[in-house]
Amino acid sequence: MSVATGTVNSAPGPNPQASIQAERANSSFDPTVMHYFLESSKAKAEDFKSVCQQMERDPILANDASYYDLTKAEQREVTARRIARIAQYLEISPDRKTEATRNAVLNLYDPQVGTRIGVNLGLFLGCIRGNGTVAQQKYWTSTKETNNLKGIYGCFGMTELAHGSNVAGLETTATFDQDTDEFVVNTPHIGATKWWIGGAAHSATHCSVYARLIVNGEDFGVKTFVVPLRDSNHNLMPGVSVGDIGAKMGRDGIDNGWIQFSSVRIPRFFMLQKFCKVSRDGDVVLPPLEQLSYSALLGGRVQMVMDSFRWSARFATIALRYAVGRRQFKSSAQADGSETQLLNYPLHQKRLLPWLAQAYVFSVGAWKMEETLAVTLDELDIAVENNDMKAIMKSINDMKSVFIDSAANKSTSTWLTADLIDQCRQSCGGHGYSSYNGFGKAFNDWVVQCTWEGDNSVLAMSVGKPFIKAVVEVLKNGKKQTGSISFLNDAKAVDNKDLYLRSSSDVLDLKKSLRAIEILITRIAIQGSHIVAENNNSYDSVGASSLAISKLKAHHYMLKEYIDRIEKNEYKELNPYLLKLGQLYVTANVIEKFSGEFVSNYVISPETLNEVINKVTPKICAELRPDVIALTDSFQFSDFIINSAIGKHDGNIYENYFGTVKQLNPSKLTKAPYSAEFESALNRSSTDVRERFERSGVAGSILSK
Amino acid sequence: MSVATGTVNSAPGPNPQASIQAERANSSFDPTVMHYFLESSKAKAEDFKSVCQQMERDPILANDASYYDLTKAEQREVTARRIARIAQYLEISPDRKTEATRNAVLNLYDPQVGTRIGVNLGLFLGCIRGNGTVAQQKYWTSTKETNNLKGIYGCFGMTELAHGSNVAGLETTATFDQDTDEFVVNTPHIGATKWWIGGAAHSATHCSVYARLIVNGEDFGVKTFVVPLRDSNHNLMPGVSVGDIGAKMGRDGIDNGWIQFSSVRIPRFFMLQKFCKVSRDGDVVLPPLEQLSYSALLGGRVQMVMDSFRWSARFATIALRYAVGRRQFKSSAQADGSETQLLNYPLHQKRLLPWLAQAYVFSVGAWKMEETLAVTLDELDIAVENNDMKAIMKSINDMKSVFIDSAANKSTSTWLTADLIDQCRQSCGGHGYSSYNGFGKAFNDWVVQCTWEGDNSVLAMSVGKPFIKAVVEVLKNGKKQTGSISFLNDAKAVDNKDLYLRSSSDVLDLKKSLRAIEILITRIAIQGSHIVAENNNSYDSVGASSLAISKLKAHHYMLKEYIDRIEKNEYKELNPYLLKLGQLYVTANVIEKFSGEFVSNYVISPETLNEVINKVTPKICAELRPDVIALTDSFQFSDFIINSAIGKHDGNIYENYFGTVKQLNPSKLTKAPYSAEFESALNRSSTDVRERFERSGVAGSILSK
Repeated sequence: MSVATGTVNSAPGPNPQASIQAERANSSFDPTVMHYFLESSKAKAEDFKSVCQQMERDPILANDASYYDLTKAEQREVTARRIARIAQYLEISPDRKTEATRNAVLNLYDPQVGTRIGVNLGLFLGCIRGNGTVAQQKYWTSTKETNNLKGIYGCFGMTELAHGSNVAGLETTATFDQDTDEFVVNTPHIGATKWWIGGAAHSATHCSVYARLIVNGEDFGVKTFVVPLRDSNHNLMPGVSVGDIGAKMGRDGIDNGWIQFSSVRIPRFFMLQKFCKVSRDGDVVLPPLEQLSYSALLGGRVQMVMDSFRWSARFATIALRYAVGRRQFKSSAQADGSETQLLNYPLHQKRLLPWLAQAYVFSVGAWKMEETLAVTLDELDIAVENNDMKAIMKSINDMKSVFIDSAANKSTSTWLTADLIDQCRQSCGGHGYSSYNGFGKAFNDWVVQCTWEGDNSVLAMSVGKPFIKAVVEVLKNGKKQTGSISFLNDAKAVDNKDLYLRSSSDVLDLKKSLRAIEILITRIAIQGSHIVAENNNSYDSVGASSLAISKLKAHHYMLKEYIDRIEKNEYKELNPYLLKLGQLYVTANVIEKFSGEFVSNYVISPETLNEVINKVTPKICAELRPDVIALTDSFQFSDFIINSAIGKHDGNIYENYFGTVKQLNPSKLTKAPYSAEFESALNRSSTDVRERFERSGVAGSILSK
Repeated sequence: MSVATGTVNSAPGPNPQASIQAERANSSFDPTVMHYFLESSKAKAEDFKSVCQQMERDPILANDASYYDLTKAEQREVTARRIARIAQYLEISPDRKTEATRNAVLNLYDPQVGTRIGVNLGLFLGCIRGNGTVAQQKYWTSTKETNNLKGIYGCFGMTELAHGSNVAGLETTATFDQDTDEFVVNTPHIGATKWWIGGAAHSATHCSVYARLIVNGEDFGVKTFVVPLRDSNHNLMPGVSVGDIGAKMGRDGIDNGWIQFSSVRIPRFFMLQKFCKVSRDGDVVLPPLEQLSYSALLGGRVQMVMDSFRWSARFATIALRYAVGRRQFKSSAQADGSETQLLNYPLHQKRLLPWLAQAYVFSVGAWKMEETLAVTLDELDIAVENNDMKAIMKSINDMKSVFIDSAANKSTSTWLTADLIDQCRQSCGGHGYSSYNGFGKAFNDWVVQCTWEGDNSVLAMSVGKPFIKAVVEVLKNGKKQTGSISFLNDAKAVDNKDLYLRSSSDVLDLKKSLRAIEILITRIAIQGSHIVAENNNSYDSVGASSLAISKLKAHHYMLKEYIDRIEKNEYKELNPYLLKLGQLYVTANVIEKFSGEFVSNYVISPETLNEVINKVTPKICAELRPDVIALTDSFQFSDFIINSAIGKHDGNIYENYFGTVKQLNPSKLTKAPYSAEFESALNRSSTDVRERFERSGVAGSILSK
């Protein structure tokens, strides 16, 4: 019998924190420095931590496990209160850099708040930035203090009930009335009802509406208009009908709504006229590229790649800390008779470490995407402002690349992060199912990222088509491809059955593996071109090939940037660990996941594949194993961000978890509110009594007479 | 301008119901007859429908979309009320057959009610049936009317906070006190707290506790005991501490609890003593097979295979109806200028039809498993009652097969059904994310099936090991294997690189594909045996191989039974459709999913694989396409079971969905409860005012002096 310490125990209990702390003490590198790498620079890493500190101390922004107990109504209220609080930070902010970090942190620990603000500042203002003149941008953004979450609160009116991905098919109309110099915005039927509009149900005062421009009976396609929804007393404008979409799988804190316009009149100057213009006389100037009006979505797509990195990091951390602290089954290898740490099982390493590698590799790709988009948008703005047509055309060309890369990366990274959250949850067994450990709400909140701002399947299809088209051009006419698809120029040379990865050491050479992905994509694209030819040139027939191309292209992007970053890394002492993570990413996340494609396209032999799966991956996992705690500590997430009872920094899994459960569900209340009803059912009288003995023998003898 | 009909429209809206109804009218077979096949017989199909009808008319049991709006507290209350209602049906039930159907239907539309009843009647009583003497079974089951949900309400006390899958490592103790002829049940420390116990928090009066039997200081391992938790006034017994585990990812209607026993005394006869006995003097008789005490879990595992069939059917139906009614993008093929039905895209067929095939193939396997378990348990009971040791040993042997088959089938079918729900959700785009379309709660409720009553990964590991061991025996000593692993007897003949599936017509021959799976499993097992040998005979090193073997074994079981059922099918006219579904299952769900394994183990060539993926699967999908509505109608689910606004029988997707949203979120309430707070934040005064002009130039000139 042990001595009583904190509580009376009749035997010593588990001590998971000892395992975690021992491994932490043995770290072979400095997690603070690794954090600089993950956040792209020392300055950004420190910015991230200072923002986190400010938020975790803020009484309104701080989060804890009680968050997981909120009802939908409570979530809505907390969300509104947090938006109001963020507004206060915004208006005193010296620049917008910290605000981007703050929103990224919000996206990580309370994504519904992040989204509600993001719809306003990102999509609504993004639409105005992308489609409005400079004067329009200034008026709607800063003159009205919208960018401080003040006065105007915008929502983004693209999707309709019957049209999502096919934006060009939207059916809301904006008909020019030359007599009054106004547009009449109208929802012609139920299918054109604006649907899923975040912020519409209760918050938004204005909406950037995507509607068909109709002038003199002619349909000029979908353009953008600012339409007020509510007046300054927050009452609905005449002709505007709005409702709450109600309960969702996740993100119930967002007041998604539907909107119907019944002949709502707006002045002509509420049309966003950077590219498309309608004159007083009804003359229409069309934009150089219709896609430009959707550029508002690009920021969101790029943000989702960044979110994918941080969410991958957060949930891999929880699962890995648990796997280090948790023990299960005795192993003959364990001399002291204690049970084996979960993470010492090769299968468990295989289940989790590739996800850790994903977080690391995604971090580099996400920062690169963010930088590329910012540069491209700035260049386009300058070109448009100077009316420099040559520069405009160059920007449009760059923008096409950003469309392809962001489509591939957004779809692949959000899918993989959804898988990561669910797989990490499962790896924690039953405890992964408790709300207080974070996975449930996370999955539910996350998965909409696979659908919104470009449905992943539709995006992936849009990536495959240009690849297949380009490879045909290369093979037929030798047309030179540029930008991120330039590796297709070698199509002729790789259009054969030559093996490329000839041994597992080839695979471990990241540059060779990168080249192997290029060859595989090229061969799939060539095969796709044959399928298209056999199917009356219908690209609908190569949906599956396009999907594979898109996913592989995303891995290609990530890996290419990762190799580049390692080469340029100023913290050389970290490179051995980064290299191993990159290798694991290649073997487990790319080659094994696409093993059928790699083998059947002769990029790798069955023998090498078997060796990679059965020997190489387990070996890398085993090598990474001792540094797992340091590699997760490197994300520098405090318990506030982690918000998971079993994933806290101290590793005191069971006490933390039990403590949270008891605090939020006081056990002194031994009866539930519905207990009386349940008890009376359990203690009910017999059926004979309740049926007034009508089926008894006595009744029978009477009733049979 | 169209004429006003139900509502005023300025243009004709979408008409999804027309597409669905047209396809329904063109059905080439009778869905009612197909239902007989799916429910295994005409009698069972009619039983299913009559139970559904009774439940959908019952005011307490009926379900609708408001179910998705319930808070946790409301879910608990509704669940309790439904349990009480089911109790009334139970006590007037002439036999238990209909009750099994009723619970299966509950599991389908309100699984938390199904589970709460299932924990009591399935696990608690199952534990007593599996471990108690006949007299004990009778006392706890019928004498006390527990089987009518009356008087006693049981929960199942296996899992602990620090021990789940390793049941043999549980730490709760039951120490025999010979002086008083009692056991003292005790929770030695926090790690041994019973955890996740369904019904414990608020409902259960008794618990079947798994605890270490300690007699005279000796630990005899984990045995089973009935321990009362609450008295007939529903107050906690002395020494019993119970609490609510709180919020979960799903199934919040279940009052999962934790239990700590502090020296709780129970009479010796509360121990379940079918196999293991403790005499008055403390003599212990141990059971012939320790695993027998876990046989209570088998019923649940088999039920989960059945649930997998019906859930697959339900969510495939929703997604397919939506895919028939929804149109997106114009296609040149569409002469009338309308947009293309989603399901006419080859990629969309590829995304969804393999899931439909899964539902069909699972139905057959599920019925077979259910039948096999019932027979095996009955035989064991009779053998034990007659004390017929030869029969007992035969039953134990049969039971081992059931352990393997149910482990492989439970883990694989619950994983695949989770994938199905999420993939079907994604295929519905944004609308899949609305709670009212059913996917969200379904996924959250479902995925715990991958964890409880045998964690899927642990179960899968347990399947792989006997295969690898057996193949070594065969290759070394030619030891003959029996039962479901008997195909390993050919190990020597297939231990080579000979192709087996030599053309796509081989693949389409279901028996050849079945054989191909056997060859693949054998080769993976042989490869696994080499890995074990290279790793000091540690089976921990073949986790990944075991996982693959387990999944392939499940597909093998399902496909084998499916082939068998088609051969014996009395409704021959259905066979062409069933055959196509079986072929699609093989090409898309087995060969493509395991393409890396099939190719790298030389079971299929890269060329044939490519042909299967790029030509055969799309062709089968296109052939099945016209009968999709009939194939989903064949499940005979009414709107009550479907409970999805976009998945209703009439196909009037948009009206149904908008109607549900408006009904549950009345749009006349244009302001949210939190609106005032939000408005005042939006209309706040300037920072200058709120900072009392303390940073103004005037203040500056004063404060700088």
